[in-house]
Formats: sequence, structure tokens, C-alpha cells
Amino acid sequence: MTTQSKWVYSFGDGKAEGRTEMRNLLGGKGAGLAEMCNLGLPVPPGFTVTTEVCTYFYANDKSYPQSLKDEVSAAVATVEQSVGCKFGDAVNPLLVSVRSGARASMPGMMDTILNLGLNKETVEGLVKRSGDARFAYDSYRRFIQMYSSVVLEISMHKFEEVMDDVKRACGYTLDTQMTAQDWKEVIEAYLVVVEKASGKPFPQDVHEQLWGAVGAVFSSWMNPRAITYRRLNEIPADWGTAVNVQAMVFGNMGEDCCTGVAFTRNPSTGENAFYGEYLVNAQGEDVVAGIRTPQHLTIKGKTENMSDLPAMEEVMPTVFSQLNDVRLKLEKHYRDMQDIEFTVQQGKLYMLQTRTGKRTAPAALRIAVEMVGEGVITKEEAINRIDPASLDQLLHPTLDPKAPRNVIAKGLPASPGAASGIVVFTADEAEDLASKGQKVILCRIETSPEDIHGMHAAKGIVTSRGGMTSHAAVVARGMGRACVAGAGDLHIDYSQGQMLVKGVVVKAGEIITIDGSKGEIMLGEVPTIQPELSGDFGVLMGWADSVRKLKVRTNAETPLDARTALKFGAEGIGLCRTEHMFFDAERITAMREMIVAENEDGRRAALSKLLPFQQKDFEDLFTIMDGLPVTIRLLDPPLHEFLPNTKADMEAVAKGAGVSVEQVERRAAMLHESNPMLGHRGCRLGISYPEIYEMQARAIFGAVIAMKKQGKTVLPEVMIPLVALKKELDILEQMVRRVASQMMQDAGTEFAYLVGTMIELPRAALQAGVIAETAEFFSFGTNDLTQTTFGLSRDDAGNFLPDYYRTNVLEQDPFVTIDQDGVGELVKIAAERGRKTRPDIKLGICGEHGGDPASVKFCHHAGLSYVSCSPYRVPIARLAAAQAAIESDKDVQARLNAA
Amino acid sequence: MTTQSKWVYSFGDGKAEGRTEMRNLLGGKGAGLAEMCNLGLPVPPGFTVTTEVCTYFYANDKSYPQSLKDEVSAAVATVEQSVGCKFGDAVNPLLVSVRSGARASMPGMMDTILNLGLNKETVEGLVKRSGDARFAYDSYRRFIQMYSSVVLEISMHKFEEVMDDVKRACGYTLDTQMTAQDWKEVIEAYLVVVEKASGKPFPQDVHEQLWGAVGAVFSSWMNPRAITYRRLNEIPADWGTAVNVQAMVFGNMGEDCCTGVAFTRNPSTGENAFYGEYLVNAQGEDVVAGIRTPQHLTIKGKTENMSDLPAMEEVMPTVFSQLNDVRLKLEKHYRDMQDIEFTVQQGKLYMLQTRTGKRTAPAALRIAVEMVGEGVITKEEAINRIDPASLDQLLHPTLDPKAPRNVIAKGLPASPGAASGIVVFTADEAEDLASKGQKVILCRIETSPEDIHGMHAAKGIVTSRGGMTSHAAVVARGMGRACVAGAGDLHIDYSQGQMLVKGVVVKAGEIITIDGSKGEIMLGEVPTIQPELSGDFGVLMGWADSVRKLKVRTNAETPLDARTALKFGAEGIGLCRTEHMFFDAERITAMREMIVAENEDGRRAALSKLLPFQQKDFEDLFTIMDGLPVTIRLLDPPLHEFLPNTKADMEAVAKGAGVSVEQVERRAAMLHESNPMLGHRGCRLGISYPEIYEMQARAIFGAVIAMKKQGKTVLPEVMIPLVALKKELDILEQMVRRVASQMMQDAGTEFAYLVGTMIELPRAALQAGVIAETAEFFSFGTNDLTQTTFGLSRDDAGNFLPDYYRTNVLEQDPFVTIDQDGVGELVKIAAERGRKTRPDIKLGICGEHGGDPASVKFCHHAGLSYVSCSPYRVPIARLAAAQAAIESDKDVQARLNAA
Repeated sequence: MTTQSKWVYSFGDGKAEGRTEMRNLLGGKGAGLAEMCNLGLPVPPGFTVTTEVCTYFYANDKSYPQSLKDEVSAAVATVEQSVGCKFGDAVNPLLVSVRSGARASMPGMMDTILNLGLNKETVEGLVKRSGDARFAYDSYRRFIQMYSSVVLEISMHKFEEVMDDVKRACGYTLDTQMTAQDWKEVIEAYLVVVEKASGKPFPQDVHEQLWGAVGAVFSSWMNPRAITYRRLNEIPADWGTAVNVQAMVFGNMGEDCCTGVAFTRNPSTGENAFYGEYLVNAQGEDVVAGIRTPQHLTIKGKTENMSDLPAMEEVMPTVFSQLNDVRLKLEKHYRDMQDIEFTVQQGKLYMLQTRTGKRTAPAALRIAVEMVGEGVITKEEAINRIDPASLDQLLHPTLDPKAPRNVIAKGLPASPGAASGIVVFTADEAEDLASKGQKVILCRIETSPEDIHGMHAAKGIVTSRGGMTSHAAVVARGMGRACVAGAGDLHIDYSQGQMLVKGVVVKAGEIITIDGSKGEIMLGEVPTIQPELSGDFGVLMGWADSVRKLKVRTNAETPLDARTALKFGAEGIGLCRTEHMFFDAERITAMREMIVAENEDGRRAALSKLLPFQQKDFEDLFTIMDGLPVTIRLLDPPLHEFLPNTKADMEAVAKGAGVSVEQVERRAAMLHESNPMLGHRGCRLGISYPEIYEMQARAIFGAVIAMKKQGKTVLPEVMIPLVALKKELDILEQMVRRVASQMMQDAGTEFAYLVGTMIELPRAALQAGVIAETAEFFSFGTNDLTQTTFGLSRDDAGNFLPDYYRTNVLEQDPFVTIDQDGVGELVKIAAERGRKTRPDIKLGICGEHGGDPASVKFCHHAGLSYVSCSPYRVPIARLAAAQAAIESDKDVQARLNAA
Repeated sequence: MTTQSKWVYSFGDGKAEGRTEMRNLLGGKGAGLAEMCNLGLPVPPGFTVTTEVCTYFYANDKSYPQSLKDEVSAAVATVEQSVGCKFGDAVNPLLVSVRSGARASMPGMMDTILNLGLNKETVEGLVKRSGDARFAYDSYRRFIQMYSSVVLEISMHKFEEVMDDVKRACGYTLDTQMTAQDWKEVIEAYLVVVEKASGKPFPQDVHEQLWGAVGAVFSSWMNPRAITYRRLNEIPADWGTAVNVQAMVFGNMGEDCCTGVAFTRNPSTGENAFYGEYLVNAQGEDVVAGIRTPQHLTIKGKTENMSDLPAMEEVMPTVFSQLNDVRLKLEKHYRDMQDIEFTVQQGKLYMLQTRTGKRTAPAALRIAVEMVGEGVITKEEAINRIDPASLDQLLHPTLDPKAPRNVIAKGLPASPGAASGIVVFTADEAEDLASKGQKVILCRIETSPEDIHGMHAAKGIVTSRGGMTSHAAVVARGMGRACVAGAGDLHIDYSQGQMLVKGVVVKAGEIITIDGSKGEIMLGEVPTIQPELSGDFGVLMGWADSVRKLKVRTNAETPLDARTALKFGAEGIGLCRTEHMFFDAERITAMREMIVAENEDGRRAALSKLLPFQQKDFEDLFTIMDGLPVTIRLLDPPLHEFLPNTKADMEAVAKGAGVSVEQVERRAAMLHESNPMLGHRGCRLGISYPEIYEMQARAIFGAVIAMKKQGKTVLPEVMIPLVALKKELDILEQMVRRVASQMMQDAGTEFAYLVGTMIELPRAALQAGVIAETAEFFSFGTNDLTQTTFGLSRDDAGNFLPDYYRTNVLEQDPFVTIDQDGVGELVKIAAERGRKTRPDIKLGICGEHGGDPASVKFCHHAGLSYVSCSPYRVPIARLAAAQAAIESDKDVQARLNAA
């Protein structure tokens, strides 16, 4: 940071030192205020202390740059001159507001302190100047209350007690009944509270007040709520916040005053109609506090919401008309829907904020598409306007936002959507009750592949353990089931058939509701709203498809998933996990017989029972995907995942395999692993038991031949998982090709297919150059690649990742958004080395990251051919891929124009 | 392979197309035969089919190069001309031997076929030419027997039956009683056996015989025993073998004939004395077969071995003198001890082989040092002559090679040395019996840190599960205990107090012996020999130390280990694993109290009990290491490793911590992890519970201050394990520095220390550039780096690595010898990036690879500063480091001359 830095930027009187483009320096609010000044809109004068001061503050042990004090003094003087008052002057005092303002809007930080500059002397000046003692004392007590709570960290509760005491003593029920004298009494009591709690009198020096407020804004940047919010919204901590100091205007100086908030279009529906609320004779905080019912701005709003209260359009038609002009001017200038705040003081309009307005996903789509129609923005801009992650809202049922929620526990928002149902604790029970038409929520400590049928039968899934990529989370997202994972406060007790949540007992059979988008678990049934895909969705996705270069496939193994993904625009299957196909009741026994067999003959006998099922699975998928590529991963998980846990199941397996129960138990004990993630799985199974992979190859090619007979073309891509050494792939590739040749010869036909591998181990990434000599495609398994690159088990990370967020070591869950520095470097190395050996190698990604917008963009820039994700994330990936293309490609405009 | 290749190299008559330097092409035997011809030694003429033909053979579906047939025919003709016989000629037949010969001597492959060229016609020619029908028919039957067994793969057993029948019918007991007629009868019966077993008559065409034998040699290159041998001896499969075809000479044509093998120096002791055995009137195989007792070559040998049989020196003084001249000529020429084979046919000496002789480790040392003294070789060469791994033999007791062994099971040679003792199944029992003066062998399915005291008390350790770097193996090597790990045939049943080995029951209390260098488990007590370090050892290690650039430290945490390592030449401690210090009875309870504590205060209370113990540990190590650097790794394993398994222990912990047993159980359940290797361990514990690392930092610096008061200097290096993110290290480094500053201030003193990190995750290797901004040193934890880079759990890999060796996917255990392509690239990347940020960064390795010669050489070439290994491997590392320096450094000679 150079000593030449300018730390403070003034605005007011139709001009400003800042402008929109200086948002990084001035924060969103500061840049908006400056820009409105530049546009000639009425803005009370003030100044912005830059975000660089915040960065300096944290880099220098919470101290300020040397020249800051002088710059602030000069800026205050400018404001004084503009409004004709003096800060701290007993006769004609300048009052200011102090507000935080980061680059992005950030709840969780200190928001606002109003009326700063009041003390026992200046309040008398305000009495005289306004001629309204009640207003002046009310303003002072508001200031003491806000400042003490925010800066001095004294509990708000103590002030409320004082108010209550005074009101009770006077026999009042409403604040409006309080007189000037009453407020003076309250002030005296407040000052006592402050001195008692902080050990010092309330600061009477207005400069001390100002610096206290500035420091509080900077400090709030690092409070836990702000840190959490940044993590959830991917905001880097080093952005910092700015501080805005602005001359006060008052919406509470009489009936010709008001204050309000508005959106330039409807933020819920996107309709192009002015939308907002205001309160007469009120200060900003009153609108928020909800003590009085806000009134609608427009007659249309009033009518649509069946309000009895008069609209601003009716009460203050002139000022309303000015406001509407501001609205149009701002939208035209910013070319996006704005969220504005204003105050009317004695009939004069003042603008206090403008920023891009938050909106629902349907509104965002409508606004973007309509603005293209209006010629306001380009299609490119429309695509960039939509947060890909927000599309989730469009695809899943959501809870009615108006319905009350009794949240008993929170977990991770593992799979979006909302669902209600009765609590069950076992997969079998879930299936049983679902088959009787009941809606159930399956609650487990954690889930395993054995629970798949129950998860499928359930409307939603809750686990008390596991992270965003735990088994429950991954499967639920794939199935489009709502899921709250890792809700650590739940103590699930299978034996008692109940769960304990902070003293509340929830028994099997009780109804709960879960919100998988927020990670909330609620008692009882909360009404939901079904999603409806608008025409706007189709239009925008069409534009997106025309620009993106990344293909989007899906991870799917069931016909339902495959069909869902196709409906959402999937261009093939990027990952068909064959192991999920072995858990059906009629298959699992044969699978287990294979596992406990004493020798290869025994395994082959059991595998021959599985072959027809497996072939049928592939025929179904090929039929649905009709000509699109389908990547089939050969068996991946360790065999012990398929073994039974109960005595009865063990006996069934023993009987089926013709061995003793002891043998089954011994086999299970032998298969036990200390670290199954790093164990006997993936292609290691193929090396040890080639007959398993051989059966799967037979099933794949058998299905291809069957399709061919029906005149259909299929492009199967056979994928060998967990390769670390080229030789592993060589041996298994040769086996697959041998099976294919044999089957072509036997059937007297020919067909095309590819053989490739997952790149999911660091060694494979480094060795990609030689592996590509054999592999015709790479699919990056970034789940396991993240686990191995970080040495981090996704099933166990939930225990300590919270400590990592708390200490700012991690800002993102690396299982959700790809770690570009570590895992990303390996992906890039592998892509580069693979392409060097085989220039036309297909490169895809099939980890959970394939549906995460930031990761999809990374994949585009890394030059991959496609991403593959769970069906419900396909539209998200399509949009993110389009945004990435716009970011980097020069020929996007041409493609868009052609679209 | 170009068509210009020459596939066949002739030798004989004092000249040869090949020479020593063509060993890769001609194999060891072929190069030796050629060189002996060039030296003018008497060698029967012949030719070598090159190793490139073998490579061609496997690359081309077991076919031969087109021109091979012609080249072989021409070479046969040259031999015919030289000896004046014709191959297949009924009157004057040429007979040949066919022998394999790879670049390195390789047991497990086909060895020899003698007398090839005999059939029912040529045998009659041999009868006439030799005038000895019995000799001729005996030769033919030997040929049929060898050829049928080796080439036609007919069981030798069937021929032995025929012989037995004939001998029984004749009433003979010895082969020597057989007459020519008897042999003819045997031949007839043999031919019937062959036709019956192979479905075809025994080949009478001598060319068919020759090509059959050549093919058998090449095929034997890929037989399972050869594959296993190559893996164990790090010989690449693509080297291939050559085939040597040579005119027969006969040591069995009468009393003026003999055959023998000899070493130019004593291969057991290294003494510079001719050493060997011979048999009069015998063919080579008779010496090996052990039917007759071989006689000593020299009178000295005969005397020393108290043999009654006459020495060759006495019986054939002239030929012996010629042989002794050959010996001296060969040693002078090859400048190393030679292993030679010879045959004397009717008073004329023929040399059949010369190669570098295998020798024991003490012999190797003596020969190398003495040859330097004799001016035969340089010090450099002497250093290179010793296989670093062989030094193990010098440091551990070994089994008396003469004692009989009843091997009941084999496992991995996990920690060298031999030990006998009574079988115990629990660590407590081991300690108990050992304290009563008993020698015990601790047998466990696998070991955990809880077994440390029992492992320490035991003479040896056996596990039925786990690999070369399993807990048992690593700890045993560190302690210098013999260990056989992963003996899968053992079924250990703790409840019965016994183990079952292929039907044999071994109960607790029975005596077994283990050979940790071979991985053998034997019933009963086998006598052992104690090692003695000769002066030659000291001389050679002195030369090694003067050339090596890599420092060698040790992994040690106990005073005993530290002292042992120092004795073996360690230059500091590279890895002190502090967790091992917490398992003592008086500490483990406090450790557990810490783990089950409800909050930080509870943890701090328990940690304060551990502090004095920990500080004392460090004071002891610092005292022993007296000024040498000591790297201390802060707590690494997951906390659940410290928790008790038994109810009684749980109750003790609950009582100590003042919590309920249920709380202890709940805490244990919460700490359970699916993949502990990738779980809450290493610096992740430091982030979650900084007070643990803080206590350890206090203990370290407390010990430093205590040492300082005694006037001693200490250079502690504080090492943070399992770092994946720079920020993890930053936070913990700041904590360590804060503690150090505070303690310096409190004690009014100053001291130096370093803070660094393990590089044991792929992400850390990739991010080494930024991590080095904070880390003052890197220590490569290549155990974990191998696990994560390969995605391979060392505790579980034992289940399937045998499949990998069988299928040639892996030739080396990557946990024993560093995987240079994958793990090695990450080490190089990290070293390079780390050094770029911090040019003087200290780089070391502390994984098990630090004691593996190949890996030590890799570390030298990667430019590391030091390796650290278990105490007993320190000399190995010193020698390997010297060899690496000789390989790459130009100034070695100067350093050696100065030494």
C-alpha cells in the first residue's frame, strides 16, 4: 500500500469523487451513492472511507493509515459546508449516519448507526432548529440505543427494559404515546445503563462517536456471522468493507415526511412494475422493525395485496412521481433491476441507496429475458445475470415462504428441495410404508449402499453424520431427493426408534419437514410450492446452449435418473456406477455368493447369474440415451460394502453359496479394511478377480449387440476406475478388447466403443502422459482426487471442517467447489500430458464438482470436453458452462446471434 | 529392432565375437565365456543367442527373428569345424550343452541341458568314438531325462520310477553298478515314458532338439519362480535372457576326468585363498545333486574342513596348477572375486563359466577392503562393491545357517534379525513374561500403538496381517526387533490362545523361532549367531562418509533408539514421533482424560499432567544427541488411537476425567472414523485443539532452556505434520513462535529453533512454493505421501499386492522403494518449488524409504539435505548415500584421497 493512497471519497451536491466502477474500493453502497450524485439525483452529502482502509486495518494490528484522520476531517468539513451545519455544534449541529458497505451486499455485518453527532448539547440545538422537542429527544435516544448496542456491545435488552419501565409507569402501550419529557427521562436512564455496563460515560465527543462507529464497522467484517456468510457466498475475506458517512435526513419530522424501500421491478415475479413499501413520519429502521405495517408505494401494489392503507402514489403524488422518474433513470443507467432506499423530509425526496436488487430465480429469468426483449441488455448479459446455483429453486419443490417453520435442527443443505413425511429409521421401513402410499423421511446416522431402496422410497433423507459429499448427499442429489446431512444435533437411537434433538424427542411415525436447500429440519408439515418451468427458462437455456463449449452429461444408472437428466438437457451419461445396480434384492444374493466363493469357478457361477440383469440394465439405459454416449464405470467399491450385516442375511448367503455361515463370517473378516477408501477397490478388483470385469464387459457388449439388432446405435465408453499405474489399465483394457472381439466374432457384427479411465489418484494425474497411450478418454473423478490430494476423507471431514471455517483456514468445502490450487493443478497437468500423448483424447469430469458452477467454469478453462453431474444439476452446469464461455471466448457473440 | 541386428555371437579357439562389456546383450554367462576366449583360456567353442532375441520373442507372440535360423546354422558349423565333429552325424557326432544366461545370475530359470545331439544313431557313434559304451548310454539317458523334464515338461518322478524298477530288478543299490546294457534298457523305458506322456516320440532330429531347448530357455524367463526372483531382486522383466550353446566336454570319461566349481577367494569369510570343490569322473550335475560327496580343491581347504577325501591339488597337481593360474588371471582381469566352473576331460582343463562370485556381507567387506590394499581396486570401487542392504546381516543376530529349520509359515521379511521365544498373544503377557526373564515372541493379527510395550519386551514380532510398512513392521525396525509381518497362513485366535497354521496348532507358551530377514516362522528354537562388526566395516564406512553429501539422521523417540542410532553413525534425529511417548502407563491415562474432556479447560488440565513427562523425554533425547539437530513432530495420529478398548480401561478414564462411562463411550463413538488415515489427525488436531500443540511446544522449549542451563546447545526443529494448506502451517507456526518468545522472555534467555513441516500430501507438494514462505524446512513423509499419491492404504495393501506381483503390474513394493515416477515427481516438484521460495530450505526425508538404498540414492539425486531412517538402517543409508555421490559427483576422488 503506497503512501500516496487516497483513503476517503466525498459525494454530494450533484458530484462525487467516486463512481460505479470504483465498487471494489468504495463498496456497493458507496459506489451507488457516488453514482447517484453523478446522475444528479438528490443524495444527502457524505463520504466513503475505502475498503483499502479495512485491509490496512487488519494488516496493521487494527490501526489506521496515518493520513486518514486529516482526510476524514476535510470530508466532514465539506459536508458541513454543503448542509450549512457543524458537526458537534451546539446551535446548528450536523448529524450523520454511518453505514458499512462491502463490495457485495453482506448481511451479518454491522449495518447502520443513525443520528450520530447528538449529545446533551447538540440535542438542544436540534430541538431548537427543528422546533420539535419530541423528535429531537427521540432521535437522541435512538442514537444512544444503536450506538451502545453496536459499538459498545451492550445488550439491546437492557434498553428495552428501561423503555418498558417508563411506558408502564406512564400507562402507555405504544411508543407514539411518549412525550418529549418521557424521552428525556428515557435518555437519562439510558446513560446510566451505558455507564454501568461499559464502565465509562456515553461518549459526548462527536468525533469519538464517529471513530467508534467507523471502528465498529471494520471490526464487524470479522465477526462470526460475517465469516459464515462469506463462506456460504464465496466472498474472499480480503475484499474488506467500506464505511459510508452521510448527512442525516429525517423521514420522521412530520406527516410530510416518509421513508421507504423499493424495487424497480417485482423481485418475486420479475414483472416490470414499480414495487415497494413506505412509512409516513418514520425513520428507516421503523420499516424494518415491523412495529408499524408498511404501506404500498403504488395503487397497483396496494390493490394486488388487498391493503387498506393508502399508497404513496395517492398520498404524495408529486414526490411519488419524482421517485418513479428516479426509478426509470436508475434502471436505464444501471441496466438492471435496482433495490433503492429513500427518505422524504418535509416534502423533499432524498435517495439513500441504490443497488442491484436480489430476486427469486423465476424473477431473475423473467427480468433477464424481458430486458433482452426491451433492448436494454444483450443475450450475453442475460446469461451472466442468472446465478446458476439459483436454478435449483426452479427444479425442486420449495417450502411456502409464508408458512411458519418450527426449526428444531440444522444440518448441511445437502440436496435441495423440500419434503414432509413421517419419520422412519430403516430403509426397509421406508420402502414398506412408501409402498402403502405414505410419505416418509428416512433418518439415519449415515447411509450406505444398502439403504438405496429406502432412500428411493423416501421423500427426503436426514443424516446426523457426513458432509456435502457423503453417501447420503451424493445419492440424494442424484435421485433428486431432498436431503439434510450431518445434522450433528440429532442423536438418532435406532434401538429406541427415536431421535433426540436438544431435549426434544422425535419418535418414528411423527411428521417432520426438511428444507434441503437450507439444511433445516422442522417439526410437523410445512406446506410446499411445486416448481413450474417458465418459458423464460427455456429461452435463456437455449441462449446458454448456443454459446457453451463444454458438453454436459449426467451421472445416472437408473432409467428414472437417465430420463430426468435427458429432460433437463443432458447430452449423454458421463458416469454410470454399475455397483448401484447390484443392490436389488434379486441381485444382491448372487453378488454376495460371488464374494464368498472359494475360487474362480464359484465366482464365475455367481457372476453368470448377474450377467442377464446387468445386460438388461444397460439395454434400458442405451434405449433412453438413444445414440448419446454412455460411460460405464466397472465395479468400483470394495467388496465388503456388499456383504450382509445381519445374521439372517449371512445365513441366506451361506445357503446360496453352499458354504457355512462361519465361512461367510471369515470372509467378511478377511475383507475388513482399515481405510476402505484406499483399499481393495476399483481396478484393483479387476486385477484380482478379472472375471468380475469380464462379466461386466460381456453385459455391456451384449446390450450393444441387442440394440444393434433393433437398428439402434450405441456409443459405450468403458471406464476403468482407480488406475494408478499404466499397467493396471493395460491389462484390463486388453481383457475388455478381447471380450469385445470375441463377441463381435460370435455375433458376426461390429460395433464401436472406447476404453478409458478415471483420473482420480494423484499418481494417475502425474502419469497421464503414459496412461493416455492406452486410455481413449479420461474422466476426472474429482471426489476421490480431492480425498487423496488433500489426504482428507469426505466421510470424516465433517468432524473438523467447522474448525477450519472458524479459523479461516478454509473458505470453501473442497468437496463442493474444486480446489483449484491443488486438485486443479493435477487436473491441468493430467489434461496437458494426456493431450500431448493423444491430441484427440476425450476429457471429462464426473465428480460431484461437475454440478458446481465455479468448478464447471474451471473445467471450461482447463479445456475439458464435458462435465457430468447429477440429473437435477444438469441445467446449472449448462448455464455455468455458458458463462465460462462468455468469460473467455471471443466468438460468443457470433454464436449468440446465430441462435 | 532393426533388420541389421546380429542375433548370434560365436566364441572358441582363443577368440570371440563378444566381450565382457556386451553383458547386456550376451548375458553374464555368454559374456564370461567370450571374455575367457579372448584371454586365451581353454573354453569349448560355442555361441550365444542374444537377449534381444528373448525380447523379440515376447514382443512377437513367441516367434523368432527371420534371420536367426541361418545365423544359428552358421554358428553350429563353426563349432563343428573347431572340434572336428558334425552335429547329428552318426559316426562323429557333435554334442552340445544349452544353458540360459541373463544379465544377472537368476535362479528360477531353466539352467542346463547337457549332451544335446544324442539320438539312437549318434549314441552309437559316441560309443565307438569314446570306446566306452557305458559312458555313451549313460550320457544319452541323462539327456533324455533332462530334455524331457525341462523342454517337454514331463515329471522327473516318472524317470526315477523307471530307474528304481531297473535297479530293483538287477538288485543294485547304486547308479555306478549299472552296466551299459542296463542303461540301454533304461533308455528304452524312458522313450516309452516320453511317448506316453507327450503323445509324441522323443525327438530324434538333433535340430528339433536344439530349437526345443532354445525355446525352453526363453519360456523359462516368464515362469512364476523367475518372476518372483526378479521382483525380489529388482530385475526388470525386459532385460531378457540369452542362450548359450557350447560343445560338450566330459568330466565323466574316466579317472583322468573331473568337474568342479570354485571361488577365487573364500566367499564366506573373504579370505584371499582359492576355495572350491570337485568330483572325479563326474558330470556337472553330479556336483550339485549331492549324490557323491564333493572333494576340496586345495590341501588347505581339505585340512580346514577335516575332509578325508584327497584334494585336487594332490590328485591332479598339474591341472590344478593350470587352474590356479586361471584363477589368478581371472581375478586380475576382472578385478573381483570370481565364481568359476571347469571340467577336466582326459587330463585337459576346460573353463565353462566365470562370473562375479556371490559372497556374504562380511566377505564382501573384507574382499573390498583387501583389494584396495592390494592396489587392485580403488576406494570408490570398494564402496560400490558392497550392497548396502547386505549390511543388515552384520547388524542383527542371524540364524545359524547349518541348523535345521522347520518352517511352518512364511510372511514378509519386515524387520531383519532372528529370534526365538515362547509364543504370547498379548502385549501385557509379553511384558509380564519378559520381566520374569523369558524370551517371548509376540504374535498378533496386527499391532497398534497400544502394543508398544509388548513389542519392546518381545524378542520378535509376528503378525498375520499388514505389509512392510504396517505398524508392526515400522515399529519393529525402529526398535531393531525381528519381525515377520502379514503371515496370512496364520489364523490367530486370541480367545483360544492359539494359532492355526495349515492344520498345525501352536499354543501360547510353545517356542517358535522367526527369521525377520527371510520372513520365516519355525517351530522350536533354532540356534542363532551374534553379529560382530569387523575392522573392515569401520574402514569402508569411513570411506563412505568421506564421499557422501547426504546427511543421515535417525527416526527415534526413545533414549535406547537414539543411542543405538548414534553408535551406527546417525547425525541427528530426523523424526521424533511424540505420540509414541504417550503410551506409557502413567501417561496414557492423562492422555485419555484430555481426549474425553468436555472443553478446553478440561483438556488443559489433563495436558498439564503430560507436560513434565514430555519435557523430560526431550531433555533425555537432547542430552544424547548433544548438539546434533533433533526434529520433533507434533502429535500426529487421530485421537481414537489412544482410547481404551476394554470396559475396565474405560472406567479408569471416566474416573480420572470425572465423567461417566457413557460419556467416554459416546466420545469414542464420535471419534470413530471411516478412513482414519485421511481423518482428524496431524495439524488438523492442532487447528481443532491448539492447546495440545501448545503443550508440546512448551515441553520442547522447556527442555531447551533446561539444557541451556547445563551449558549445552540444542537445535530443535519443530515439525507440523499433515499440512495441506499454507494457512494451517501459518496458524500453528505463529502459535509455536508465540510460545517460544514467551518462554524466552520468562526465562530471560534466547535460543535458536526452526519451524517446518512434513510434506506428506500431494497438495502440500504442489503448494510447496507458498508453504516454504513459512516453513524453514521440509521433511518428506513418503509413507503417507505414497499412500495418498497411490490412493493405497499400507495396512490394507497386503490383501492384493500379491496379485499385483503375480500379474507384473508392480515389481516393487512402493512402501519399501520409493515410486520415482509418481511419488518421486511430487518430491522433486516440492523440492524445486520450496527451494525457489527459500533457497536455503532444509530438505529431508523421514519415511521408511530413508533406509532403503534405492530410495536414498533417489534422495541424493533430488538434492535433499538428509535422510532419516530407523537406527539399524543408518549404516545402510550412509553407504547408499556414498554410492549415489560416486554415481553423480565429479569431486568424489578428491574427497576420497583426502579421507
